[in-house]
Amino acid sequence: MLKSVLIILDGLGDERSKELSATPLEYLGEKIKNFNRLAEKGVTGLMHTIKAGVPPSSDTAHLTIFGYDLEKDYPGRGYFEALGAGLKPKFGEIAFRANFATVREENGKLIVVDRRAGRISGEDADVLGNDLNKYLREQGYPVEFVHTLEHRGVLLIKPDGHELSSKITDVDPHELGFPILKSQPFEGLDEEERRKAEFTARILNDILVDAYRFLRDHPINKERAKRGLPVANALLVRGAGIVKKLESFKEKWGYKAAFVAAGPLYRGVALSLGMDPIEVEGATGLPNTNIKGKLEGVIRAFKQGYEFVFVHIKATDNLSHSKKPREKAEFIKKVDDMLIVLDDILDEAVIAVTGDHSTSSVRGKHVGLPVPILIHSPYGRPDENKYFNEKACEKGGLGIIHGNEVMPLILDLSDRANELGIRTSPKPVYYIGSTGEPLKI
Amino acid sequence: MLKSVLIILDGLGDERSKELSATPLEYLGEKIKNFNRLAEKGVTGLMHTIKAGVPPSSDTAHLTIFGYDLEKDYPGRGYFEALGAGLKPKFGEIAFRANFATVREENGKLIVVDRRAGRISGEDADVLGNDLNKYLREQGYPVEFVHTLEHRGVLLIKPDGHELSSKITDVDPHELGFPILKSQPFEGLDEEERRKAEFTARILNDILVDAYRFLRDHPINKERAKRGLPVANALLVRGAGIVKKLESFKEKWGYKAAFVAAGPLYRGVALSLGMDPIEVEGATGLPNTNIKGKLEGVIRAFKQGYEFVFVHIKATDNLSHSKKPREKAEFIKKVDDMLIVLDDILDEAVIAVTGDHSTSSVRGKHVGLPVPILIHSPYGRPDENKYFNEKACEKGGLGIIHGNEVMPLILDLSDRANELGIRTSPKPVYYIGSTGEPLKI
Repeated sequence: MLKSVLIILDGLGDERSKELSATPLEYLGEKIKNFNRLAEKGVTGLMHTIKAGVPPSSDTAHLTIFGYDLEKDYPGRGYFEALGAGLKPKFGEIAFRANFATVREENGKLIVVDRRAGRISGEDADVLGNDLNKYLREQGYPVEFVHTLEHRGVLLIKPDGHELSSKITDVDPHELGFPILKSQPFEGLDEEERRKAEFTARILNDILVDAYRFLRDHPINKERAKRGLPVANALLVRGAGIVKKLESFKEKWGYKAAFVAAGPLYRGVALSLGMDPIEVEGATGLPNTNIKGKLEGVIRAFKQGYEFVFVHIKATDNLSHSKKPREKAEFIKKVDDMLIVLDDILDEAVIAVTGDHSTSSVRGKHVGLPVPILIHSPYGRPDENKYFNEKACEKGGLGIIHGNEVMPLILDLSDRANELGIRTSPKPVYYIGSTGEPLKI
Repeated sequence: MLKSVLIILDGLGDERSKELSATPLEYLGEKIKNFNRLAEKGVTGLMHTIKAGVPPSSDTAHLTIFGYDLEKDYPGRGYFEALGAGLKPKFGEIAFRANFATVREENGKLIVVDRRAGRISGEDADVLGNDLNKYLREQGYPVEFVHTLEHRGVLLIKPDGHELSSKITDVDPHELGFPILKSQPFEGLDEEERRKAEFTARILNDILVDAYRFLRDHPINKERAKRGLPVANALLVRGAGIVKKLESFKEKWGYKAAFVAAGPLYRGVALSLGMDPIEVEGATGLPNTNIKGKLEGVIRAFKQGYEFVFVHIKATDNLSHSKKPREKAEFIKKVDDMLIVLDDILDEAVIAVTGDHSTSSVRGKHVGLPVPILIHSPYGRPDENKYFNEKACEKGGLGIIHGNEVMPLILDLSDRANELGIRTSPKPVYYIGSTGEPLKI
């Protein structure tokens, strides 16, 4: 039985830009020697995370790749964001991902000008976050707002004697030029759930109007306007989530698992599955992140007895959203250079590399194109493909797989997969090593 | 955001005939320059409409490709046929597709000799249709029979104070040499539904016996027999359908949609989804159809503000049913010649071309082989394949997809796809452009 590493380069797959006449990976071609070496000795293919043509959000993508069923297991993005921000949301609370954003007032509507307020960060964002939290609580709202990285934050609504529901729509329209939306209950809820959802949506709508007025008039925004910087005059919230106990990764796949990730969302997903964090100095979720340190974290985790390590690298996605294919390629090259850190474990661990979805550096958004994947293992049947890029992986031996096939493939190539039909435990198990009770004589 | 065109050449995929030593598309090879040009600059693949090996009917195929769930949404073929024939069926009525057919009497059974009465058409079919309708109504049957194209028609049974059911079997045996069957209720219905189905089947069976006697003795059939033409002495009905309100294409995918189609079934499917007809002179559903006019209809529809146009071309299927692979190839070549009409919109629209299913021109029937598909878009990742045929598309970058992935792919390549996990509207939406209400301040 081998250990396993799953490296997810966020938004790795891409379209072909005019600038590079290729995708970033295709443009790199032979230059990413270490990725190519793994591809050559491993199996490769393309992956539709959900299904052909469907662009997933990062959390639905990760949950699917880890083998969970969105229909049954998805708690809503806010839950992951809250966990990842170090909050301890309680049953009954509703958590939202929140952005500082720039809006302009027009006929009583708030038109979104910049969904990220120029990626505001540093002290400005910290102070605005703290002051907003204090202000909202003083107004008597049962909330907690926590600023996390750059323009990002988490909003928690607490029950305060009422029952809440996460079955409400985003106020973030997700597109520029559209107004901030009124949160509403989902269609098709039963009477009781609808009542809870109406109540929750109403509080949220009130909070957002008040937050706008407070942020609009805040001295920091006046100062920013003077300096010609985008103001952070609104909160855009989305992804209402409930606290949900998910089957742990260990229970599901049998691995004692750890993760190396800086972004709150990814930390939240991993924490929700019971993975333990391996902290790495200089891991930022940005292009300047400490790639070497993150990969060394894998070796460290193995030494600490972990059997599976999920490594998340975010900057590929950021650079795609910013429509910078060349910088994306340069960043991937940096990751490739550091990959030699893993050379020592090639015989004891499966190494899988993929993205959670494609992010187009042409269109600056998540798209439904399949993502290249490679799985390197001492087991398995290496294919003919020697390169790690979209065009080459099209001809890989895995063909086109779906996101929920990644974990079964890793499990099998780690020599840990149970035969289908074998049943040693009261609940179905996919991995070798029964959880059943021994017969006593 | 781009507009989109979906061209469905009915029964496009095929088997390899001895006559051509290839499928019609493979036989055409480099000759279909315009299809190949779209394939070269686009992505290609093969499509199982339902799943591998399952030959669909045209209506189940189209509904699946448009992204609807047969289990939940399929009303039965008769409903589409009725809508397409220009009838306005009402809730509670049962609609059937009907053929004029040739049968011979044998020991009190009606053996099917020709399911289409030699594709009878023109005045003979019109007069027989009108007279039959009049006769049946004079006998007191609560029905309406309408002749449509060639041997085709629609039979409507009206409630007339009773409750009816579409859960009854076809009387059409669908094979030559077999007798016309007695319609019966489906197995496994609950008591109430079974009672309604028994009643509906009894009326239908009575109608068909009377229709046979009336048609057998009709002067037109005596005249046809004298001239050595196949007589249209029976009605073969199938596909009992109820009136059903389906979610509109606009609600489901966000496009303002139109269609260009001559065949009543395809018009019916499109109408049932709220698409608007673009009428084209000389569109016949036959090999002599006005192909250029149909494609010009797309341009016209775009100018009128439509964002999605479904174009249906029928003759590929007819020629396959008649086992004429060479004529099928010639017809496809004609379509290819006219495809230049769409050159002006290549930058503003996604163009997808496929079939609803394969129809074998060897076996003369729908078969479960996958159909070639191409999707041309300024977005996406063109694959290496340069040709539009079965063999070439086997190596296309889409791999093998399913029918219900076509619309997500078109949506994504039109830059209209919402991220999975984003929820801006009370009901789930797949497309960009919020349907939510603005927050008022």
